[in-house]
Parts: sequence; C-alpha cells; structure tokens
Amino acid sequence: MPACEVLTMGRCGVDLYPQQVGVSLREVRTFEKFLGGSPTNVAVAAARYGRRSAVITRTGDDPFGAYVHDALRAFGVDDSFVAAVPGLPTPITFCEIFPPDDFPLYFYRYPKAPDLEIDESDVDLDAVRAAEVFWVTGTGLCQEPSRTATLTALHARDRAGITVLDLDYRPMFWESRDQARRWIQEALPYASVAVGNLDECHTAVGTREPRKAAAALHDAGVELAVVKQGPDGVLASRAGREVQAAPIPVDVVNGLGAGDAFGGALCHGMLSGWDLAEVMRFCNAAGAVVATRLACADAMPTEFEVRELLNVGGGRD
Amino acid sequence: MPACEVLTMGRCGVDLYPQQVGVSLREVRTFEKFLGGSPTNVAVAAARYGRRSAVITRTGDDPFGAYVHDALRAFGVDDSFVAAVPGLPTPITFCEIFPPDDFPLYFYRYPKAPDLEIDESDVDLDAVRAAEVFWVTGTGLCQEPSRTATLTALHARDRAGITVLDLDYRPMFWESRDQARRWIQEALPYASVAVGNLDECHTAVGTREPRKAAAALHDAGVELAVVKQGPDGVLASRAGREVQAAPIPVDVVNGLGAGDAFGGALCHGMLSGWDLAEVMRFCNAAGAVVATRLACADAMPTEFEVRELLNVGGGRD
Repeated sequence: MPACEVLTMGRCGVDLYPQQVGVSLREVRTFEKFLGGSPTNVAVAAARYGRRSAVITRTGDDPFGAYVHDALRAFGVDDSFVAAVPGLPTPITFCEIFPPDDFPLYFYRYPKAPDLEIDESDVDLDAVRAAEVFWVTGTGLCQEPSRTATLTALHARDRAGITVLDLDYRPMFWESRDQARRWIQEALPYASVAVGNLDECHTAVGTREPRKAAAALHDAGVELAVVKQGPDGVLASRAGREVQAAPIPVDVVNGLGAGDAFGGALCHGMLSGWDLAEVMRFCNAAGAVVATRLACADAMPTEFEVRELLNVGGGRD
Repeated sequence: MPACEVLTMGRCGVDLYPQQVGVSLREVRTFEKFLGGSPTNVAVAAARYGRRSAVITRTGDDPFGAYVHDALRAFGVDDSFVAAVPGLPTPITFCEIFPPDDFPLYFYRYPKAPDLEIDESDVDLDAVRAAEVFWVTGTGLCQEPSRTATLTALHARDRAGITVLDLDYRPMFWESRDQARRWIQEALPYASVAVGNLDECHTAVGTREPRKAAAALHDAGVELAVVKQGPDGVLASRAGREVQAAPIPVDVVNGLGAGDAFGGALCHGMLSGWDLAEVMRFCNAAGAVVATRLACADAMPTEFEVRELLNVGGGRD
C-alpha cells in the first residue's frame, strides 16, 4: 500500500448523538450512532478531500468495534492499523446539543479505552515515517502504553515531514493539568505543527494569551502554531508571519466536530501548499460547515462544500 | 409514607434499545432510551398493578441518573431510596434484538456500577422490614459494599413476610460461577421465595434438573421455588404441591423484560393471595405480553392486559 498522506493516531469510538436538540440526556428519547474520536474524525475529514488517510487506533472486540471498521472503510479511510483489544468495550460518547455554544460530552471509556492500549511494538513505524502528515493528540499521552507508543512514533518521525500535535486537552482523562503539561511538553519538540484552543494552550505552555502562546509553542520547536480563540477567530504564526482568520458566521446546530473538520482541512491545506492565510480561511470554513450539521465524522465536507461557504460567507480577514 | 407492598433492591440504569430489529449493534442506526435494570423493572411492573412499590438503588450523579428518577416517578414507583454516587456514570445497557430467542446484552457498568455501591449504613432497614414483599437479586451480591448491604437487609427481614431472591446470574459480573454460588447460598436461607431459570438454578444449587433444583431450593429454606424452563414452561413448588405452567405462545418482539414482568406479576399474585396455579398462569402471561413489546420497563402490562391475553391465549396447564 502507498504511504499515507494523512496518518492520525489516537482516540476512536462510537458517538451517540441525541435526535432531540436543546434538551439534556435526562430528556433525550432517541440517539443516532456515528463514528467518533477526534483523530479518527480528522482522518475522515482528510479522506473527504481525497487524501489517502489512515488512523492508528484500537476498538473493543465487539459489534461496535466492527462498526468502527465499517464506518472507516465507508469513508475511504484505511483501517489496517485498527485492531481490537479483548476485554475492553468500544467506548461510547454521548453529547448534549444546546446551540450555539454548549455541547457537553459524556464519555463511557471504562474500565479503559482500547485506544489507550496501543503498544509501541504494534505501531508500524515505517508507515509513521512514510506518512506526509502524521497527527497525534494530547489525549494519546494521558495513559500508558499509548503514551509511550505515541512518543515512540514521534521519535521515529524525527521531525521529518509535517507532524501535528493536536493539543486536545480533556481534563477528565488526566489526574491534573500539570501532568498533561508534562507530557505535552515532552511531545512538543517533535511536532512541526501545534493546534489548540486557548485552554489547551494554557495546558501546553502555561498561557492563554494568543500571541504569547504562539511564541511559547515556537520556543518549544513548533514551526506552525495555530491558536483557536473561539469567537475571536484563529491566530496562526509561522516563520515570523502571523495570520488572523475571522470566524465565519453560521447557524450552529452542533459545534462538536468543527475542530476535527478544521484539522482535516489543515492537513489538506498544508499538503496542497496553499498560502497560510488561505489555509486558515479554508480551515475556518470547514469547521463552520460541520457546525451547521448534527454529526461529526459523518458531516465532514468536501472541498466543494467548503469553497461554497467561502464564496457565500466570505471569511476574508 | 406507608410501607411498600413491593420493595426491590439492586440494579438500575439506562437501556438503549435498537430501533432496528434483527441486526447487530454493528448495523443499528438509532437507539431508544428506556429505564432498565432487573429489580427496577420488577418495581415498575408491580406498580402497573397498583402496588405501592419502591426500589433501593444508586445512579450516577449525571443527567441519566436524573432520568432514572423521572422515569420511576412517571411509573408511580417511589424513588426515595434512589441516590446518586459521585464519580460513577449511570450504567448503560445495549441489547441486540434477534427474535424469537436471541437478545444479547452489552453492559457499560464501568468503572463500577453505582448500584453496587449501596452501603449497608444507607439502607432504611425499617422500610425493608415493613415491606410486604422484599425482592433482591443474585447480581446484588456480586460486589461489595452492595453484597453486605443486601445480606444485611435480608438479615433484618429475618424471613418475615415474602422475601424473594431472584437467582439472576450474569457471568460477566462474577469471577466464577463458584463465587456466585457461594454468595447466593449465603442469601438463600433468608429467602422465602426463589426464582430462576435452569442455568441460574445450576449456579444456586448445582443442578439444572427442574425437580431436583426445586427440592434443593426447598432444602436451603425456600418455601416457594419457581424454576423457569424456557419453552418447557415454569415449575413452581410450595409445601409439597407442584404446579407446571405452560408458556403462552406469542409473537416475540423482544424477550428481554419478560422475566421482570414475570417477577412483578409474581409479587402481585402473591400479595393477592391467589392460588399457586393461578399465580403462575398470570406470571407467564405477563411475561408473554412484554415479550411482544420492544421495551422492558416501559412495556409492563396492566392487570387488564394480562387477563386479556389469558382469555385469548389460554395458558391453562
């Protein structure tokens, strides 16, 4: 098989999303099943742009795990690096949908998520080295053996090509923010790109101030720092150049998945060699498209759909 | 508050049942949310017959836990003895629906089910003593502190009134069948009624032969032994009298919940002082009604509905 254009590593599972909007899980009556997990969604988003993508992850040895394979294949994502871990159920994630900006998540990742059972000896380091973009997340560092597997993969890359660290910080997966910072800082020197929101930057480099955060990420060795500021848009900085991209106003249905859509678009934009400002506009628009849709993985847009929104909605900074 | 007619103790949670029948969780697209957990369902079933019922159980401190309270109240079940355990999610149970006889369950009761965190000091022993029927299950004995809480409640009853031990045996909740047997045998001398299928009898008293199982249950101190033999109907024996009740043929939609419907009917029949054969016919019919419906708790019949089936379908032995 040819090398991946986008190879992600980390979380996967089944998302169960309410079919009733604006109510808590207390009132929800029915749920729809989707593929989920941030790096899994990023691989799906990249595949929608025609990129050869794959994800290194684990499922339970159960029907939901089989579904993960089915869904990945249906989205055109290579599932060769997805294996089952006996004895651990495939994780389930519920969300509540309170547009425009409140989408609480409820994780059933117990007794342990299979995707935290990736052993370094099982990782195909040749595939990791050969991938044009390699994408890992902060959550992948929260528990062993996946932490060592993730760091081993980063070491194998040795800063070749594009290596993205999604600063993705979920407090419930960590003992403390300090512990998360310790491991994210261990990973940062091996990343050429870091992406995170203000809280995630706080975890990674100790500051919520966008420019300071970008500077600290550069100091840690990152070439491209992408700082998401919510309603204030996105700050991207690379080689002394700074780009501010304004958010694209849309009627938000479900904000979940917008970040992963942004991530898949970032991979596509970087691989396409677009100008940094163009990449950021495209990423913002991709996130905005998904925010107008209920699902995450199942909602990832094509390039045509993103450009359609850019033509209508603008997004010029 | 007046004493309960039926007080149950043990498992509760949220059932997520497929809206597509005959497919595995791999293919299911949407799920419907129901109240679940065997002794919880028994309390609901009893309430449908107008019995003052309550359940001693625990939920997570989360929106699904709040739903458990809402659902209990909507069914007329007293939720005074239901509390939340911080840090543990409300359990989720998925099923697959392959009529007529295959309904696999997938439990998400990790890191531990709140209903296994019932502490003996939190159990209202006055309410336990005052209840006309007290109902516990084998699963309630699988882990501490709920095991001790269950045994303490049984000791407090001291064999007064009707005390039912549902032999309910789920292998995944135990280290071994031997371990389950050890604790069920500890509880049996405090039960005046034992109910179980052939496999559960095997766990409880080491035999799958219906008459031998009933005899062994009597030897352990049980007055009424109810042995469910699936397609061969139900064997009930009390004070030297034996009743065989044939199953009532129905078009099965979902067999799950039929056992709990049987249990609620058993409580109602015993409280009504019906003849043993009449009780068993009613229980069989109640189970059959629920088997024709998708849900469990939400599907529990009224007495009118059970009698309607008995009038149409017979069920005479």
